[in-house]
Amino acid sequence: MSAPVNHPGLSFEISRQQADLDAHGRDENSSSIVHPAGVVFAESRDDVLAALRYARETGTPVIPWGAGTSADGQVVPRGDELALDVSQMDRVLSHSVEDMTVTVEPGVTRMQLDAHLRSAGVFFPVDPGADATLGGMASTNASGTTTIKYGGMRANVLSLELALVDGRVLRLGRPVRKTSSGYALKDLVVGSGGTLGVISELTLRVHPRPACVQGIRAFFPGVEAATRAAFDVMQSGVPLARLELVDELAIGAVSRYLDLRLPERPALFLELHSSTRAGLAAEVEVVVDLLGEAGVLDIEVATTAEELQQLWKSRHQIWYALIAQYPGRTYTSTDSAVPLSRVPELVEGARSLLAEHRLDAAVFGHVGDGNVHTCVAHTEDQAEDLALYRDALSRLALDLDGTCTGEHGIGTAKRPHLIAEHGEDVVELMRLVRRTFDPDGLMNPGKMFEDRRS
Amino acid sequence: MSAPVNHPGLSFEISRQQADLDAHGRDENSSSIVHPAGVVFAESRDDVLAALRYARETGTPVIPWGAGTSADGQVVPRGDELALDVSQMDRVLSHSVEDMTVTVEPGVTRMQLDAHLRSAGVFFPVDPGADATLGGMASTNASGTTTIKYGGMRANVLSLELALVDGRVLRLGRPVRKTSSGYALKDLVVGSGGTLGVISELTLRVHPRPACVQGIRAFFPGVEAATRAAFDVMQSGVPLARLELVDELAIGAVSRYLDLRLPERPALFLELHSSTRAGLAAEVEVVVDLLGEAGVLDIEVATTAEELQQLWKSRHQIWYALIAQYPGRTYTSTDSAVPLSRVPELVEGARSLLAEHRLDAAVFGHVGDGNVHTCVAHTEDQAEDLALYRDALSRLALDLDGTCTGEHGIGTAKRPHLIAEHGEDVVELMRLVRRTFDPDGLMNPGKMFEDRRS
Repeated sequence: MSAPVNHPGLSFEISRQQADLDAHGRDENSSSIVHPAGVVFAESRDDVLAALRYARETGTPVIPWGAGTSADGQVVPRGDELALDVSQMDRVLSHSVEDMTVTVEPGVTRMQLDAHLRSAGVFFPVDPGADATLGGMASTNASGTTTIKYGGMRANVLSLELALVDGRVLRLGRPVRKTSSGYALKDLVVGSGGTLGVISELTLRVHPRPACVQGIRAFFPGVEAATRAAFDVMQSGVPLARLELVDELAIGAVSRYLDLRLPERPALFLELHSSTRAGLAAEVEVVVDLLGEAGVLDIEVATTAEELQQLWKSRHQIWYALIAQYPGRTYTSTDSAVPLSRVPELVEGARSLLAEHRLDAAVFGHVGDGNVHTCVAHTEDQAEDLALYRDALSRLALDLDGTCTGEHGIGTAKRPHLIAEHGEDVVELMRLVRRTFDPDGLMNPGKMFEDRRS
Repeated sequence: MSAPVNHPGLSFEISRQQADLDAHGRDENSSSIVHPAGVVFAESRDDVLAALRYARETGTPVIPWGAGTSADGQVVPRGDELALDVSQMDRVLSHSVEDMTVTVEPGVTRMQLDAHLRSAGVFFPVDPGADATLGGMASTNASGTTTIKYGGMRANVLSLELALVDGRVLRLGRPVRKTSSGYALKDLVVGSGGTLGVISELTLRVHPRPACVQGIRAFFPGVEAATRAAFDVMQSGVPLARLELVDELAIGAVSRYLDLRLPERPALFLELHSSTRAGLAAEVEVVVDLLGEAGVLDIEVATTAEELQQLWKSRHQIWYALIAQYPGRTYTSTDSAVPLSRVPELVEGARSLLAEHRLDAAVFGHVGDGNVHTCVAHTEDQAEDLALYRDALSRLALDLDGTCTGEHGIGTAKRPHLIAEHGEDVVELMRLVRRTFDPDGLMNPGKMFEDRRS
């Protein structure tokens, strides 16, 4: 049922309808559903503040909810929380062509924003794959294939409005490109996983749409050769907009799925953006030469929009190719990042661990950022193997001087790795910082850190 | 005198020699000297920890000291502090070509690092003008002319080691290009002005040296036309490595100083970096066309190293030109940043305020980042006018949705503007965050925030 909340002076409704509870009981990587205590749909900042008032007056924990596309349990309830769904706060509030900024409510999705901006000749560059909300993307410090050139969320959120549990609304950051004014609290909130407050507005930086784009797909004898080629290209200083590595298993799956007859070898996918045709042609030539020197087996340059679409289809449909190859299974994506030189060790190590735990997976990622995903296609019986694999992979990434999460965030599954990565002292400091925003620990408890009260 | 410190178990020396106290009694913009209680020269992390132990056991405040080139009093004592000078911690600890990272002690200076990296074909891009230490640059979140392309300190410090007053040494961040692991405490420490702890090591991101560089100097009828041209170039998507605005007063001064006979008009200085000659030529052509359409009066393209040096000399020697024009005066640089569209209002507003307060100044800045400096040449009698001007200028920047400091930091002079910019609630939160790092407030007290005990 959905009924007016029984709380003095508050007029919003808490839904306890089965469909709403189901829809707010899982995220992208969940294998089961856990209902929240209720769901509130906020349509405005005032609605957010009313829900937060209810939360503090009743001691109810709050999960800020966008599109539910988090990957590591960031929005998954334990059961006693109110899911505060801001997906209806989906207005683009203003767009300044000259400032190259856009101000949005947190429920605006990436694709909605892209459609809004297209006619203005600009775009927002952060693309995590899923059609996530901008509020959710800020919460996890999301990034994606173009981060190598344009940066992730922290670089592209200029300022944000944060509603605290105590009812105060803070504006953090300014709509400027540079500031050294005080502590970088905006940067602290980006990536905080909904544990500090509810993001109720964001001002984002947008970028000119590139006039000229070309793509390259290049196959190599092995992962080591492919990553070596990637480093050579990066060190040349050619401005890359994307630099992706896809292993031969993923290539095989997508080749069969799309009937492409690709060589079943590791591939690099590259994209270059330029404002001039001549500049782009010269840069693509440099890249093609470098890949040739690095022992490329097969290379294809996409110059038309259609060719580009075809080329990237073979990267973006890996997920669907896996689903076709392993029907009925569950798919879980990991997210390690390491220093650039350690990528081959991470990829080979991941494959050894996958073999050891008898798991089927594709390995691919944003090699230009040292960020590697493995997409595991597993059965329900393999839950324990999967957990062991994920744990071992995170530890491997840390051993390689890396991080247990490049872009997904900590959520719940990686809480032990947060401590392994940073040490007890640093995590304790994070807890203390959390308390300065939310002394009673009502914001998304149990995420990022173990909830000490549970 | 310099003597072993009279404290049980500690063997370091505190200098109270006149020369040391004088050298640690002012920064770039100081008009007078205030001695610290003493100076400690740390040669290692252990020395830093020994000094911090002394500080906490005796309740002595600490000022972390690098090159003393801060602009707004960040390292200026009030009198009871120990200046903890880390300039002798000046070793480059490691440099990874493949990872494109370098790890340094905090006392390594920008020019020292540049010399170290040159033969490796890479460079560290943040150039605040002064030969500051990397530790100091991180503390103020410094940036400079190339920030438009490469980002400032926060983007280029991957990880750092922070020694807390309580004796713990924290490693914040990881040597990776992307992470979403926990709160961004590394980003919080960058820009914290020495108020959280002592930075004892930094891992920095380095970039390939551009193979091809060209520069452009273009004169316009007025500031409005020049900034409009700057926006047109930015919106074209041409990758700019520098985009500087210099007003006609500064041009006049430097023209007379270097005997260049330049048109006394506002100028844009641009630089483009590319990995290919053809690409660079095409991009420069786009820029030249756009500047032509925007009504350029006079334009010069520098293609050789010598031409580039000559061109940039007329930008970099503005400071010396002012000294020549107004000998015997003191020179103070302001540092506002605003959204791109508000730059003409900021420049015109600054000039009106300068006229109102009868101050002589050049106006120039990083227009591509919306960051404008005014360099005021003032006499001792004008101290009050200068203070009034600086205050009014900061308020103007805030009225234009900007920030009171783009790259210098808050220090002492701008503490009231920190509150005006962010509001009492946000500044109170900053104070609470500060306390989680330094509960007793011994790190650089009175900087960033008013010291409530004084």
